[in-house]
Amino acid sequence: MSSSPVATPAADCPLCREDGGLLIARHARFRVIRATGPDADDFPGFYRVIWNEHVAEWTDLAPADRSVLMQAVAKVETVVRRCLQPTKVNLASLGNVVPHLHWHVVARYDWDSRYPAPLWAPAARPNDDARLAALRGQLLACDAAIAALSF
Amino acid sequence: MSSSPVATPAADCPLCREDGGLLIARHARFRVIRATGPDADDFPGFYRVIWNEHVAEWTDLAPADRSVLMQAVAKVETVVRRCLQPTKVNLASLGNVVPHLHWHVVARYDWDSRYPAPLWAPAARPNDDARLAALRGQLLACDAAIAALSF
Repeated sequence: MSSSPVATPAADCPLCREDGGLLIARHARFRVIRATGPDADDFPGFYRVIWNEHVAEWTDLAPADRSVLMQAVAKVETVVRRCLQPTKVNLASLGNVVPHLHWHVVARYDWDSRYPAPLWAPAARPNDDARLAALRGQLLACDAAIAALSF
Repeated sequence: MSSSPVATPAADCPLCREDGGLLIARHARFRVIRATGPDADDFPGFYRVIWNEHVAEWTDLAPADRSVLMQAVAKVETVVRRCLQPTKVNLASLGNVVPHLHWHVVARYDWDSRYPAPLWAPAARPNDDARLAALRGQLLACDAAIAALSF
């Protein structure tokens, strides 16, 4: 099976320069971070699996590497479901703003500010601060379970 | 390797009752449709790979079935890139509204009404009707290429 072409870091790419969030696990080919900043304000259970090399599209990877990446996404999703008990997990690889391959793994709840719309839709209701605080209290255990995964 | 648990159709699930769009390819385990309706008005190059059985989460599938599904998504993405030359492909499995496992494969363009925001964000500019019409003119060839895939 052919391997993915070797990519060089892009000077203007934030995901080549920085981890891109709170580093939870580092693998030779990818890393797992938990989102910080505005995304995490509304959706605390927001992880990303970021391919380390600078490639834009998932199908820029060789099939074996795609599988490596998706197996990692599946492991993160499994831990998120177990630890955070979301109503639904949302998975997405968009990369329009930062075209460096990464997968969003987001715990969604029927009480969150956008549900059932996609998290990028306008807010349908105010944040439920008490529930968000309770969810934030579960994050360290979820982080630890992801960090303990054997990828 | 264990197989996925057998799911029964859900009476109130539109993706158990109907194809869910213009049927492009049917496989024993999944189907590929092209979106119709409002989604297609703004994003004509909008395909979905829909698992036939009613399961909610990607990790509800056994690993081998997850791989079957993602290999299909990769093949559809590859055809979309070749036939429609998007600025970026967007992949997502959300299922908040219809919790029946399906993957969105969407051709995005730097001139589309939301770019670079996610397609579910509010419109940033009016539709470019001439470019949308040109894109629609490419869809039958893309459909045919997807229909000709060996899954």
